[in-house]
Amino acid sequence: MQVAELDTPAFVVDLDVMERNVRSMAEHARQHGVRLRPHAKTHKSVEVARMQLGAGALGLTLAKIGEIEALLEAATLDSGEPLPLADVLLAFPIVGDRKLARLLDLAQRLTVAVSLDSPDAAGQLGAAAVTRGTTIGVLVEVDTGGRRCGVLPGEPTLTLARRIAQTPGLSLRGIMTHEGHAYGATPETLRAVSQEAGRVMVQLAETLRADGHEVPIVSVGSTPSARHIAEVPGVTEVRPGTYVFQDYNQVRLGVATVAECAATVHATVIATPAPDRAVVDAGTKAVAADRGMVGGVTPVQQEGYGLVKGQPGWFFGRASEEHGVLLRQGDGHADDLRVGDRVELIPNHICPAVNLYDRLVVQRDGVVEGSWAVAARGRSR
Amino acid sequence: MQVAELDTPAFVVDLDVMERNVRSMAEHARQHGVRLRPHAKTHKSVEVARMQLGAGALGLTLAKIGEIEALLEAATLDSGEPLPLADVLLAFPIVGDRKLARLLDLAQRLTVAVSLDSPDAAGQLGAAAVTRGTTIGVLVEVDTGGRRCGVLPGEPTLTLARRIAQTPGLSLRGIMTHEGHAYGATPETLRAVSQEAGRVMVQLAETLRADGHEVPIVSVGSTPSARHIAEVPGVTEVRPGTYVFQDYNQVRLGVATVAECAATVHATVIATPAPDRAVVDAGTKAVAADRGMVGGVTPVQQEGYGLVKGQPGWFFGRASEEHGVLLRQGDGHADDLRVGDRVELIPNHICPAVNLYDRLVVQRDGVVEGSWAVAARGRSR
Repeated sequence: MQVAELDTPAFVVDLDVMERNVRSMAEHARQHGVRLRPHAKTHKSVEVARMQLGAGALGLTLAKIGEIEALLEAATLDSGEPLPLADVLLAFPIVGDRKLARLLDLAQRLTVAVSLDSPDAAGQLGAAAVTRGTTIGVLVEVDTGGRRCGVLPGEPTLTLARRIAQTPGLSLRGIMTHEGHAYGATPETLRAVSQEAGRVMVQLAETLRADGHEVPIVSVGSTPSARHIAEVPGVTEVRPGTYVFQDYNQVRLGVATVAECAATVHATVIATPAPDRAVVDAGTKAVAADRGMVGGVTPVQQEGYGLVKGQPGWFFGRASEEHGVLLRQGDGHADDLRVGDRVELIPNHICPAVNLYDRLVVQRDGVVEGSWAVAARGRSR
Repeated sequence: MQVAELDTPAFVVDLDVMERNVRSMAEHARQHGVRLRPHAKTHKSVEVARMQLGAGALGLTLAKIGEIEALLEAATLDSGEPLPLADVLLAFPIVGDRKLARLLDLAQRLTVAVSLDSPDAAGQLGAAAVTRGTTIGVLVEVDTGGRRCGVLPGEPTLTLARRIAQTPGLSLRGIMTHEGHAYGATPETLRAVSQEAGRVMVQLAETLRADGHEVPIVSVGSTPSARHIAEVPGVTEVRPGTYVFQDYNQVRLGVATVAECAATVHATVIATPAPDRAVVDAGTKAVAADRGMVGGVTPVQQEGYGLVKGQPGWFFGRASEEHGVLLRQGDGHADDLRVGDRVELIPNHICPAVNLYDRLVVQRDGVVEGSWAVAARGRSR
């Protein structure tokens, strides 16, 4: 079947482009001697995880235990071939008895480390590990500017690291940050912003080592910063997620070209009620409502819902759940769109878009090769 | 099980509140002699649909064929008792051979009408109906100010109505509008804005009747406007959706009180990295990223991701996919939140939040009574 014959809306992945993205990031990490631990929230699928691990990723990053459980289960159920996943970072504090029990079950099957930023979370985790007679690896989450989770660099990190090192059931493995404020950079400042976060982390690791801790892991995240920060000596691990598909946020940040965006939402024009407007069958239920990133939203990121690929005369300016409203741009050079025409949309943020689909269609050269289950979709716990 | 024991994030419905909402809207419609055809996109579940139909709704509104298919199938599979649904409005132009074929299959099982706003969509639908030797009811979608789909009132509507009336396979059943611009009103102007849209529609129906058309249906939508517009003589049908659960947008519009919000997302504090900030395990993957409505977004609607129920000192100011960031409000009277504490969040817009869950937990007086499948979740086609 040709891609053009797919019913819409459909989430379509260009395999050639995605494979290049996977290889390219893996090569960059190898060249700079850092380990690659992709955040699998972007794709939530067994097939992409296999590809990342096959390209040399040492493991995966995920936010929720349920996502790991779902991927492991789906791999075995769908193909009979277990996911070759030996090492996971849960980049999210695990709080509460029920989740801690599941985490410890998981830790019997593979190496799991958890990031956290409070004595409370550390205490809960350590106590749970002790009751099972085991030890869980912990990374201290550091706030390098994202103002989400994380202790501040310097004394606060040192204090928490000491606490963790002294907590039975926990093994201090290092430090991590999600430098989400990189999304607030411009294409011109991105490199400096990213590398500054890296340098803060490396210096912090030295402080901890001087205090007698081992700190084998200095882990940093985010697709826009990953390539730049991998070049900072002393960083040991990068955790980009979006890079497999890329998206319009990355294009606007200068991180990817439109041609490097591997995933698009195919949509159909269902109405052209005014000369300046065309309505498509893909709204926020098909592309998500994300209009920018946390921790540094620039005005340009707040505009619209994504890019209308190959149609510079049209702006994806408004959306409700089922309706995407394309607006004719000021220059007036838009091709006419008619009812029944197809367009390809590149969402601002691809990760929440993936989470809206049960399956991703995969194509090569315009021919549909099949579809992949979004096995960890909706796993919030 | 007590609600407080649920693992988080969880989407929880207070049955008492929801039942009151369902009854109250049904009574209001009855009192004013209009038919109620709720938009089921809000809940996407068989159980709520049964409740609405049981309370006197003449049928349902949905946007996508797949949503109707899913509800009908789930009703029969889950309970063996078919959904007593005899009449559906697809409030979305149906375009393309594959969808038209499914629509006509559906029309063999129940009465289906379709709204549309173009000769192209009308022509496709009529031709498809003719090949099956049947007739499909059509409502002309009118743009009363929402600037999404819809022909303008007056001559454009008249022209399209005539075209539909002359198209084999189509039966002109009336006119409809989604007065989405009501979301741009204030609590003070909402009544006037809503009723003005109603009057435009009634006058338009008279114009069409004077032209020789029957126009049995004058259908209007949206939860904020439904009660006001039902009072306009000549309106025959209202299509509110959100009213079953209500949400923070409705609270800000003065349409509902917080106590009338039947659905909340239960979340757990996982970090308190700074005195002015608490991070919960419910981000946009748990509440959706909607920051306002299409067609009239006021600045206040763009702020934040929802209400922290019962915690006026905290503002749900930022969110990424897995993290919700609660910010201490300026007044400084926020209760302290500690790691492990639970909060209830009322999303800005409840409909896309529902679409993120496989099941809705239902409770009464704090005791979990069970859960309902979101049977039509993700059905975008």
